[in-house]
Amino acid sequence: MNTEKLEKIQEFIENKHYVALMSLLSQSNEVDIAEILDEETPANALLLFRMLPKDLAADVFAQLSSEQQSAFLNLITDKELVPILDDLAIDDIVDLVEEMPANAVKRILAHASETDRTIINQFLRYPQDSAGSLMTIEYVNLKKTMTVAQALQQIKATGLKKETIYTCYVIDENRFLQGIVSLRSLVLNESDTLIQDIYEEDCIYVHTNDDQETVASVFKKYGFLALPVVDTETRLIGIITVDDIMDVMQQEATEDFQIMAAMQPSEEAYLDTGVFALAKHRIGWLLLLMVSETFTGNIIDRYTDLLATMTVLTTFIPMLMDTGGNSGSQSSTLIIRGLATGEIQQKDWLKILWKELRIAMMVGIILGAIIFAKSYYISRKPLAVSASVGLTLIITVTISKLTGGILPIIAKRLKMDPAIMAGPLITTIVDALSLVVFFNISQWMLF
Amino acid sequence: MNTEKLEKIQEFIENKHYVALMSLLSQSNEVDIAEILDEETPANALLLFRMLPKDLAADVFAQLSSEQQSAFLNLITDKELVPILDDLAIDDIVDLVEEMPANAVKRILAHASETDRTIINQFLRYPQDSAGSLMTIEYVNLKKTMTVAQALQQIKATGLKKETIYTCYVIDENRFLQGIVSLRSLVLNESDTLIQDIYEEDCIYVHTNDDQETVASVFKKYGFLALPVVDTETRLIGIITVDDIMDVMQQEATEDFQIMAAMQPSEEAYLDTGVFALAKHRIGWLLLLMVSETFTGNIIDRYTDLLATMTVLTTFIPMLMDTGGNSGSQSSTLIIRGLATGEIQQKDWLKILWKELRIAMMVGIILGAIIFAKSYYISRKPLAVSASVGLTLIITVTISKLTGGILPIIAKRLKMDPAIMAGPLITTIVDALSLVVFFNISQWMLF
Repeated sequence: MNTEKLEKIQEFIENKHYVALMSLLSQSNEVDIAEILDEETPANALLLFRMLPKDLAADVFAQLSSEQQSAFLNLITDKELVPILDDLAIDDIVDLVEEMPANAVKRILAHASETDRTIINQFLRYPQDSAGSLMTIEYVNLKKTMTVAQALQQIKATGLKKETIYTCYVIDENRFLQGIVSLRSLVLNESDTLIQDIYEEDCIYVHTNDDQETVASVFKKYGFLALPVVDTETRLIGIITVDDIMDVMQQEATEDFQIMAAMQPSEEAYLDTGVFALAKHRIGWLLLLMVSETFTGNIIDRYTDLLATMTVLTTFIPMLMDTGGNSGSQSSTLIIRGLATGEIQQKDWLKILWKELRIAMMVGIILGAIIFAKSYYISRKPLAVSASVGLTLIITVTISKLTGGILPIIAKRLKMDPAIMAGPLITTIVDALSLVVFFNISQWMLF
Repeated sequence: MNTEKLEKIQEFIENKHYVALMSLLSQSNEVDIAEILDEETPANALLLFRMLPKDLAADVFAQLSSEQQSAFLNLITDKELVPILDDLAIDDIVDLVEEMPANAVKRILAHASETDRTIINQFLRYPQDSAGSLMTIEYVNLKKTMTVAQALQQIKATGLKKETIYTCYVIDENRFLQGIVSLRSLVLNESDTLIQDIYEEDCIYVHTNDDQETVASVFKKYGFLALPVVDTETRLIGIITVDDIMDVMQQEATEDFQIMAAMQPSEEAYLDTGVFALAKHRIGWLLLLMVSETFTGNIIDRYTDLLATMTVLTTFIPMLMDTGGNSGSQSSTLIIRGLATGEIQQKDWLKILWKELRIAMMVGIILGAIIFAKSYYISRKPLAVSASVGLTLIITVTISKLTGGILPIIAKRLKMDPAIMAGPLITTIVDALSLVVFFNISQWMLF
């Protein structure tokens, strides 16, 4: 929605120009209307909501924030609730049931139709983040023996309540999925053509229990608008449409960002999450990594004699630890992301190690040379100290890059999420290694 | 494609069962066929490619890797090239021209039709990663005065070459965009209905120069299948379809992952990128952060007297630096991601600081108490030392979380990419701060 229109709407709200407001709202996209209602108090929002044309109201309701939905449910009567539930798509009701407080859920289920209730209960049994929990059952199904004209007639009769009519599903009398036919081929073919002559037999589908990440990668790979979801015997159960998958793709990337920054992943928006929940998601990893770093401290402990005679060595600790950590993070991030997008496979591990080794030599030697020059010529540190720092850096960068390159692959092989092998963990491992290398090289060079 | 079918195809290839192979391939999805061809040598792949039905061949060609496309272009004659170019969608030719070496580009342009050549040249002028560079011009346009029957007739006549027929665009005689009408409403309405009675006037569009990230967020927000692209005077120039946007979404996330791990972003796949290019993308930030960390070293330099008398303090440096860095990373990652998805706005900065402050107090006090207990009771370090470490941790975690929370917002305000304010940079800033805090508290507690 453009700002001009938005300002007009807000002006109408303030001045209570309800007639003008209604005509403007009814021409707007449901997402935009929901955004406006979310900004208002529940009472005001409900006032505006009640002015919406009936067919738009359910669409807008589905797009409201859960807070506003919950507030609406507290404010509206049963007589108002029933038509909204009737107009909501079944997957939107399921989402609602999953998010609302218990008393609201009870009321929704009490006022849903008998069939809806059965379906809702079935949906709630699919594992979270599975294809089953994402799908909708509002699809067009056709028979092989129909003509294009019959198919279009059926779409016309039932299409209004369907999530999409652009991909139609060909099933037999036992609901086994036989193939798909697009509305595109229906429209482009002659009306007496039989479906069996134009449908795609060899169609791609997912199973109800497939993980949503798998589903998203199928969508991305083939560029589909919808995918059929089948049970273990390839009976058609539902469909997933591309608009729901865009949310999944974003959510999966967000989850990886969170794990890679050493947090427990959460689907809730930052601003909507309580301080206590946020703290809980963060403290586990912080604690684990903190305790691990005390072991790095123990390494220093063993070299206190060396450090007492050569306190200058201490000044290089932050630089060595950090450069090692950053080098390892770079490698692990690229590998983790490659594994997530499917560009990198487990079998590529040797290629990765060989690549990282060569990169590490290049980067390590350049950084080592620069730090040696800076330390010896600019900071006027002793030659042996500067040389040990430079040499340590080359070794540290190499170890870090190899560790960063291989750990995500190992995690994947162990059926763990590769994303946990990101910066924070690599840093902790590399910190200890780089100090051991540094103290040993220094001892050997200096004494 | 299921593994069974894939194995069959590979078996047919090995045994040169070309008739069976062709029938199997011609039923497959172009993405799967391209994947199989990409695995073969160019000569073998071309042999298989030549067996494909003509209408499938161009679709498969568009899906091949650029290496294989380039190899094909070297192997095929001009007589073979022309029909492929004729069947390719214009945006696929543009992609090809952007990726192929100069001599191949010359040949493509020489054999493209006059009109195609003009369009290609126009496309190449749009900024990289703009809506203009993503769009296609193969859309269905209709007039307001048409009936549904006339519209469907026109779609039937021209639809085969269109990228999508599911959203049609209503334009006037000067190509000004007047609105959109979906194939859904065309099919669901009676044939004598006028387009002007069913089209959506208030449609959402993007401009040719809009960034692809903006375009992707519009798609995600509204769940559209296609979006019109207009010039500054809202003349319709092209459309963008959702399948192309899924690639953009993934690419934008990948870019953020790379920037957040202190690398120059690159669109090329890890395994396809040369060692030299990868090293080049990594060394800049490593060098900058390394040099910054030498300043942290200078801080230690100023406290060598303290460290010489109390060498035990040195053993806490890795733990304090790392916990600070991790705490800051957690906060900055959540804010950066929230800004990217649009969940967080610049105006939320005060809310963020207040939230992070409370989280930091909780997390800091817990971690501080644990490290104090471990240091004093388990490691048997002096009380004053253990107390300074615990206290430093609380302060460090607080500073880190506030820094991590606010820096991405400041970056955004300065029109920089917030992603650069991720872990590596925060860590470097926080390292210096935590050491200053630690040494000052220790000095005050111990002497």
